[in-house]
Amino acid sequence: MAEPLLAHRPGSQNSSEAEQRGIEEEDALLTGQSTGKQAQSTTQIVRSKWREIGLFVWALVATAAVVVLAVVYQHSRSESAGGDGSRPSGKHNLIFMVSDGMGPTSLSLTRTWRQHVEGLPYDEALVLDEHLIGQSRTRSSSSLVTDSAAGATAFSCGMKSYNGAISVLPGTFEPCGSVMEAAHRRGYTTGLVVTTRITDATPAVFVAHARRREMEDDIARQMIGEKHPLGRMVDLMFGGGKCHFLPRGEENGCRNDNVNVVDMAKDEGWGYIDSKQDFDKLGTNIKLPFLGLFADHDIPYEIDRQYQDDTYPSLEAMATKALNALSAATKDKDQGFFIMIEGSRIDHAGHSNDPAAQVHEVLAYDRTMAAVLDFIKKEKTPTLMVSTSDHETGGLAVARQLHREYPPYVWHPSVLANASHSAGYTAHEYHKHASAVAEHGTAVDESASEDMRAYLQELSSEALGISDCSEEEINALVDEPKIALYHFADMISRRAQTGWSTHGHSGADVNIYSSDPHAAKGLAGNHENTEIGEFLRSYLDLDDEVETITKLLKKHMDEVGAEKFLGRIPEDDERLDGQDHMDEYHGDHKTRRCEVCGV
Amino acid sequence: MAEPLLAHRPGSQNSSEAEQRGIEEEDALLTGQSTGKQAQSTTQIVRSKWREIGLFVWALVATAAVVVLAVVYQHSRSESAGGDGSRPSGKHNLIFMVSDGMGPTSLSLTRTWRQHVEGLPYDEALVLDEHLIGQSRTRSSSSLVTDSAAGATAFSCGMKSYNGAISVLPGTFEPCGSVMEAAHRRGYTTGLVVTTRITDATPAVFVAHARRREMEDDIARQMIGEKHPLGRMVDLMFGGGKCHFLPRGEENGCRNDNVNVVDMAKDEGWGYIDSKQDFDKLGTNIKLPFLGLFADHDIPYEIDRQYQDDTYPSLEAMATKALNALSAATKDKDQGFFIMIEGSRIDHAGHSNDPAAQVHEVLAYDRTMAAVLDFIKKEKTPTLMVSTSDHETGGLAVARQLHREYPPYVWHPSVLANASHSAGYTAHEYHKHASAVAEHGTAVDESASEDMRAYLQELSSEALGISDCSEEEINALVDEPKIALYHFADMISRRAQTGWSTHGHSGADVNIYSSDPHAAKGLAGNHENTEIGEFLRSYLDLDDEVETITKLLKKHMDEVGAEKFLGRIPEDDERLDGQDHMDEYHGDHKTRRCEVCGV
Repeated sequence: MAEPLLAHRPGSQNSSEAEQRGIEEEDALLTGQSTGKQAQSTTQIVRSKWREIGLFVWALVATAAVVVLAVVYQHSRSESAGGDGSRPSGKHNLIFMVSDGMGPTSLSLTRTWRQHVEGLPYDEALVLDEHLIGQSRTRSSSSLVTDSAAGATAFSCGMKSYNGAISVLPGTFEPCGSVMEAAHRRGYTTGLVVTTRITDATPAVFVAHARRREMEDDIARQMIGEKHPLGRMVDLMFGGGKCHFLPRGEENGCRNDNVNVVDMAKDEGWGYIDSKQDFDKLGTNIKLPFLGLFADHDIPYEIDRQYQDDTYPSLEAMATKALNALSAATKDKDQGFFIMIEGSRIDHAGHSNDPAAQVHEVLAYDRTMAAVLDFIKKEKTPTLMVSTSDHETGGLAVARQLHREYPPYVWHPSVLANASHSAGYTAHEYHKHASAVAEHGTAVDESASEDMRAYLQELSSEALGISDCSEEEINALVDEPKIALYHFADMISRRAQTGWSTHGHSGADVNIYSSDPHAAKGLAGNHENTEIGEFLRSYLDLDDEVETITKLLKKHMDEVGAEKFLGRIPEDDERLDGQDHMDEYHGDHKTRRCEVCGV
Repeated sequence: MAEPLLAHRPGSQNSSEAEQRGIEEEDALLTGQSTGKQAQSTTQIVRSKWREIGLFVWALVATAAVVVLAVVYQHSRSESAGGDGSRPSGKHNLIFMVSDGMGPTSLSLTRTWRQHVEGLPYDEALVLDEHLIGQSRTRSSSSLVTDSAAGATAFSCGMKSYNGAISVLPGTFEPCGSVMEAAHRRGYTTGLVVTTRITDATPAVFVAHARRREMEDDIARQMIGEKHPLGRMVDLMFGGGKCHFLPRGEENGCRNDNVNVVDMAKDEGWGYIDSKQDFDKLGTNIKLPFLGLFADHDIPYEIDRQYQDDTYPSLEAMATKALNALSAATKDKDQGFFIMIEGSRIDHAGHSNDPAAQVHEVLAYDRTMAAVLDFIKKEKTPTLMVSTSDHETGGLAVARQLHREYPPYVWHPSVLANASHSAGYTAHEYHKHASAVAEHGTAVDESASEDMRAYLQELSSEALGISDCSEEEINALVDEPKIALYHFADMISRRAQTGWSTHGHSGADVNIYSSDPHAAKGLAGNHENTEIGEFLRSYLDLDDEVETITKLLKKHMDEVGAEKFLGRIPEDDERLDGQDHMDEYHGDHKTRRCEVCGV
């Protein structure tokens, strides 16, 4: 039966009575004229009513199905494909995690060490592993190998800059608006949590601007809002670096002026603590703005901190407390929060070439990510976590050729498991001991030398789990106490057969992770680090606001003068890598170009 | 107006006439009784008909919308989510690419060098970069650092095995069925394309079984099907390694017996060529099975091969020709094809620690991937490409500290750009020259020594672009000609400031790439290498077939004897890494365990 509708209609000769009646009725309907059959039986009316109800129910059910299907389809669209549609429309939070200096190889190193220590099967992965979505290319505008300042400026401003730049652009040396400044102005509550100095490059770029990263005294004042052109841009800060907040001369102060930035912050309305005891007392409802500075410089490496939990909070504890506080503070607000959480010292362990310190740092970061994911599960406001590194540090390899002979295919996580302290801590202990001996001791005679050698054997055994120091190793420690840090780290690395190519950074791509591969789909695959910055501000819908911030900053610069705001422009060959981690000696610090490169 | 429906109905005292009539009509409809109003006016009937038509149209439109939405939704579901639904139901092809020894850092190295050489902007990525989907964990059952045999067995059998195993399992030393064997038995046409010996570990595991990877003589006979228990499992092979097909004594033969496997293959019906001229003559329709062996051992590094294109085909050329041949051969078949394409010598450049050779190898692999993607676009049968590495080689770092002083954050791709040959080629030239001098020369006097020093300066300049050899570098070359390869490579590496930690493999995670992130969704993120093997056979729907193959292989083993089929079980401390690349010297090859590790 595939006849066209109304096929019989024109001049149908054989139309039955029923057909005829139907046509007449139709005509009546179309013309408004009567069909001539005035007497409708009750049965007919009832039948018509029933038809109407049937049609009505059909139409209603079909319409309901349309509505349901449209909603389901829309939902499935926004769940999948997305890309541009992945930015949530309502209130939402963004957690940006940075694993400073962690390259791809750190994962294999840490995963295997953890399997060894905890007796886990070979396929037991890290939390990080389960959230890998891509990789980031890290070069800066001034070098194929970035420093943390340029690396972090790519995140904060979404643009390449020169090594040493704190949210300032190359060429013009003018400031660029950051995603956190824009977020704050749009009503987001903001936070920074780190294990290094809060004035160090990675946190600094989010709420401060400086032409040289070492301007940490100035950065401290910008961070509390006192010297920032737009006022305070961050609501909560946890980390180290107290010394840049305290005046020259005051105990533990390391500023080059007499300003007390802690007092200044309190005057500006900041709550302030600097002890683990006070940290532990903090509840969920922290009155913002709030500043917690728990170390003069860096918070100790996790491998050392684990014995000093009464003195220093862990990254996980700081992150958890900060997230709960930001969640509580934004509970009744229209906007959510934006926080940056940094595992700062993975980088430092790389600089020291200390694999034992590094695995503890990476695992601490992994635990922090687990805590962040737990928070996200419980948090009512939709929350996305994105994590990446600014660069690789050290050129780490999980294999090392010790001799000229072709190397066996092994490395030894058990060596890292035996170490109970970082090489940095061990060197510090050695220096303290040597100072004490020098103070009390007399002339350096043979027996004193023997005592020192015995002490170094004992120290290596206790702190690093190395009980078989060679004659040469002890000689090196005695002869070059200033670089004992490097010697201790090398003693571990050689035994574990982990390799390093430099005490500086390298140009390797680094990994990107997320709590939600769909929402972070724009970062799946391989990307420039600037695309991560673009994603952050796009996710928070702040593209316009960042531009506004940039304009306001430039206006301020023009008003007060560029140097006064941002400091002087760095010299052409000025070293801006910022490798002056107070407790770690990095050799002469002289930039000695390769004499034979001809490049 | 938010009154509930029918709110007025029960006992409504103020109901108007219209309301009352409505209720009476409704009652009549519900009960089938008359309302008592027998006289219906024409207007009422017409109105009722109009209502019916209206309802009918509404219902029809809504129903049509339901159908349309349902179809669109279904389509969007099958386009997105997928996961388990990603295995295509109809005929399809699978291209598995292996970048042997390429770790994540090789990408940064090669990308930057290419940008330098071709004058490209900093964000010009490789084809590889644009297809990154995840990473693979590579450890084997016997070591934290895998060799290529165990690494490839994870792909072929989807299971961890010991270093040196060719599709044989640890503990029992029994064979495991491979994905290519299963594919062939199910009617897929199969292929192998490599730039090393076709009998080397990576290709071997797909169609052969051996307890020790060095059984290449035996592997050759299995690969052509002559000695494989199930007969021939591969239809097309392009690569090097001809010497393992030719008998001892015959020119270029390196077998330990008098068997001529090339003749054997011809007898078994194989087409055979061994010259670039014959390769060039091959059209699209190659009669299978077909074997092309274009080098006695390895096909030269791309950096050297580029000047010998008349003698050796490139990986891209071999891959393209193979793909077109397999496509043509399967055009009218129910099943598609499965091919493994290996960039074999990225690994060798890593073993040599030669960054100049490596960037050319990686770029050749990148070009091959581009050609594969082009093929997929044009191919009518749905085709998926998945690419990964078996392991990292060398512990490469794109940064290197040359002095004790803290290193600058740079590396120099221009140094790699200056090199026109590999360190291996350069060492070979040196050895040839030294042999010639030794043959014709007389006593080694001072002037002869000066001649040799001048020659080495000139060779370094011509082959490596290094015109500033130091006294020490020339001394090292003169004093240790046997490891000249390493010295030449180090001269480049130091100048480029690229770092290496070993001449062996490392335990770093390696990247996974795909032509279709959705179809390869099961490999997104971080995975054990065995999951890649599982994916390959699952994608081809071969899980059952692989089990059948394993059973058949074991049956054969029981029948003919395990040693006869698979060779003897390796000794406990036997070295199975297979680092005997004929033209490259790797030092003493003695496994010297770390004396001080205590592990």
